[in-house]
Amino acid sequence: MPIISDKGRKMPESPIRKLVPYAEDAKKRGINVFHLNIGQPDIKTPQVALDAVKNNTLEILEYSRSEGSEEYRTKLAKYYAGRDINVDPKEIIITTGGSEALMFSMGSITDTDDEIIIPEPFYANYNGFATASGVKVVPVVSKIDNNFALPPIEDFEKLITPKTKAILICNPGNPTGYMYSKEEIKKLASIVRKHDLFLIADEVYREFAYDGAEHYSILQEEGLENNAIVIDSVSKRYSMCGARIGCLITRNKEVINTALKFAQARLSPPSFALIASEAALETPQSYFDEVIEEYVERRDLLISELHKIEGVTVAKPQGAFYCIAKLPVKNTDEFAQWLLEEFELNGETVMVAPAAGFYSTPGIGYDQVRIAYVLKKENLVKAVTILKEALKKYNA
Amino acid sequence: MPIISDKGRKMPESPIRKLVPYAEDAKKRGINVFHLNIGQPDIKTPQVALDAVKNNTLEILEYSRSEGSEEYRTKLAKYYAGRDINVDPKEIIITTGGSEALMFSMGSITDTDDEIIIPEPFYANYNGFATASGVKVVPVVSKIDNNFALPPIEDFEKLITPKTKAILICNPGNPTGYMYSKEEIKKLASIVRKHDLFLIADEVYREFAYDGAEHYSILQEEGLENNAIVIDSVSKRYSMCGARIGCLITRNKEVINTALKFAQARLSPPSFALIASEAALETPQSYFDEVIEEYVERRDLLISELHKIEGVTVAKPQGAFYCIAKLPVKNTDEFAQWLLEEFELNGETVMVAPAAGFYSTPGIGYDQVRIAYVLKKENLVKAVTILKEALKKYNA
Ligand SMILES: Cc1ncc(COP(=O)(O)O)c(C=O)c1O
Ligand SMILES: Cc1ncc(COP(=O)(O)O)c(C=O)c1O
Repeated sequence: MPIISDKGRKMPESPIRKLVPYAEDAKKRGINVFHLNIGQPDIKTPQVALDAVKNNTLEILEYSRSEGSEEYRTKLAKYYAGRDINVDPKEIIITTGGSEALMFSMGSITDTDDEIIIPEPFYANYNGFATASGVKVVPVVSKIDNNFALPPIEDFEKLITPKTKAILICNPGNPTGYMYSKEEIKKLASIVRKHDLFLIADEVYREFAYDGAEHYSILQEEGLENNAIVIDSVSKRYSMCGARIGCLITRNKEVINTALKFAQARLSPPSFALIASEAALETPQSYFDEVIEEYVERRDLLISELHKIEGVTVAKPQGAFYCIAKLPVKNTDEFAQWLLEEFELNGETVMVAPAAGFYSTPGIGYDQVRIAYVLKKENLVKAVTILKEALKKYNA
Repeated sequence: MPIISDKGRKMPESPIRKLVPYAEDAKKRGINVFHLNIGQPDIKTPQVALDAVKNNTLEILEYSRSEGSEEYRTKLAKYYAGRDINVDPKEIIITTGGSEALMFSMGSITDTDDEIIIPEPFYANYNGFATASGVKVVPVVSKIDNNFALPPIEDFEKLITPKTKAILICNPGNPTGYMYSKEEIKKLASIVRKHDLFLIADEVYREFAYDGAEHYSILQEEGLENNAIVIDSVSKRYSMCGARIGCLITRNKEVINTALKFAQARLSPPSFALIASEAALETPQSYFDEVIEEYVERRDLLISELHKIEGVTVAKPQGAFYCIAKLPVKNTDEFAQWLLEEFELNGETVMVAPAAGFYSTPGIGYDQVRIAYVLKKENLVKAVTILKEALKKYNA
């Protein structure tokens, strides 16, 4: 009895999750698996945030305001002001993670069957949110040869149709680690203005900017008031992924009003997490400085180790904590599975994220993997050594 | 510059929220407003749940499993077993509130433009979730004259089209307080089997069953394994609305697999709230007994006070903590606003939820309001007195 109609919406499978059963099997066989596949940092959550929750005095765990309390939004506006981003608390809606902010954004600016253009490779769950909203993702290919810089603006323009409602970028990028320059943002700004589109920027990795590179937010770009929508999250910033607090920011009143209706329908963001997130705003700058230093060291180590492997090309990331590496194999889906099913070096192996799932154009990205540098340095070195030996064996 | 296209999806406004600005104005004028409009209980959250969060020892607030930990789902299955509902932990997906479980359910079983039949009046946010998913709500009218019992099954059958994917019920009902009998559930079971539809039951008020009425879950109905999807939540059960933990339960493997993809796309439910929800399962039965006793007393008081007002009809609720009252006015939208803007009795007034927003059929429900009995008894009495005097003045 096939009770789900064949034409039911096809939710895409997460490329990061689909290897999980193989990793679990490997662990059952006693193999130690280094996880280079996930974006779960091993950094401690700021103590001030954890303490605020431990010391809470709630007696009734009530719904909070759908859009987040005025206090929290006011404090958050101050955080942005400290990053040269001037927003009013009214222009912020607190969401259940950046994930929900993405859902609300897509939902608020599209009708079903509308299109959103996204440079690929992109954060794979954009596909899921688009499918859930009945929206079509239209990819523009960016290239490993130039570190996944912004594709030529003509490539975007060619894809614009009457159904196009927005361009969505991730800055700095997951999975690319690429950070868009001010000039690239200006190019995007002019094209969305010209075609009356929204520009959605997923800036959840804003704080993770390296080598003195300055993050330029689309909210800093003048004349983009009606077009710009920013996605943010406490998940990575404070290593509080489990909190599930994020936000959507826009100066466009219509979008705020519509997004607010989405927020009201789901009632409220999680209350304990709000306590943690509000307190996290007191995190001292030294916390970020240390975290950034750690990530830069990990990145440098990872890149130099990867360069030692013959046939591997890496795009050097300037932000976030991922990079895309091109491997000398035909199909990284198969290779990644083989790593878990058949390979081991002294009882250890690695799990990587095959990159094809980060592309929407069929047939590309099969020689690439995404590597997250969320492991301690000694483990990163071990993991790359394993990868090197594995490639030798796989290609023999 | 109308940057949102006119054909953008029209998110409905919550009927409960739209009067909030008037209530805020009233408060600014120094008026005490009794809130009969919202489903936020004033009952204390079980101490065991609050303590678990205060005593947590997390150092990194990590993502939890997308579908919820096996431990929590296993314990939850035991809770259901205690209610004569036998489910396997694998048949449960933990969600961010019942709200998200509703979104996942609608998303998993429909494609855009599909239809879901719902007896009205219904929980207004079903409209929002359907709109967000691009799904059409098809209402079947239930009547105050018979306490909002299940409409004749022919009324459902008439509305079934090739696009119909499910019937959605709320049991016990918000806003009606009606509890479906075993016979009514069996009627629904046979019609969904006959037409190969899903039956979604929102059972978030399961524990709130009065007068010895036994709640009959659709999961207790045999032969409905492929059709039944249950929505649940800790929000009302443990007065933990701010936790944002709920679940979706189904024995249909295809639905679980698809819903899991929705869950994976948004990564995980909130971690602190999971700690609270797992601990809440230790809540002693005495807590529920006391809560039920309190609600029964409130309900009885509310109904008998309402009966004292001329021209008022009430449907006596057997579950949840709402009732629908028919008032001797033409338009309760206007009346509810007038209560906040122009009326006061010794510096006090009441806020009620106009019922038209709980109906999807245009033009009906305008002489009804929803009243939530989430206030202490003395305040309920005061609130109904205010309503009585207000109706006199309004109709004079
Ligand atoms: C680019 C990007 N956007 C959004 C998210 C969603 O994160 P969250 O919902 O935890 O805020 C992630 C998580 O990995 C991400 O990498
Ligand atoms: C009938 C019904 N279903 C679902 C919900 C959603 O509740 P939550 O998301 O807090 O679990 C509510 C909340 O009022 C409700 O009344």
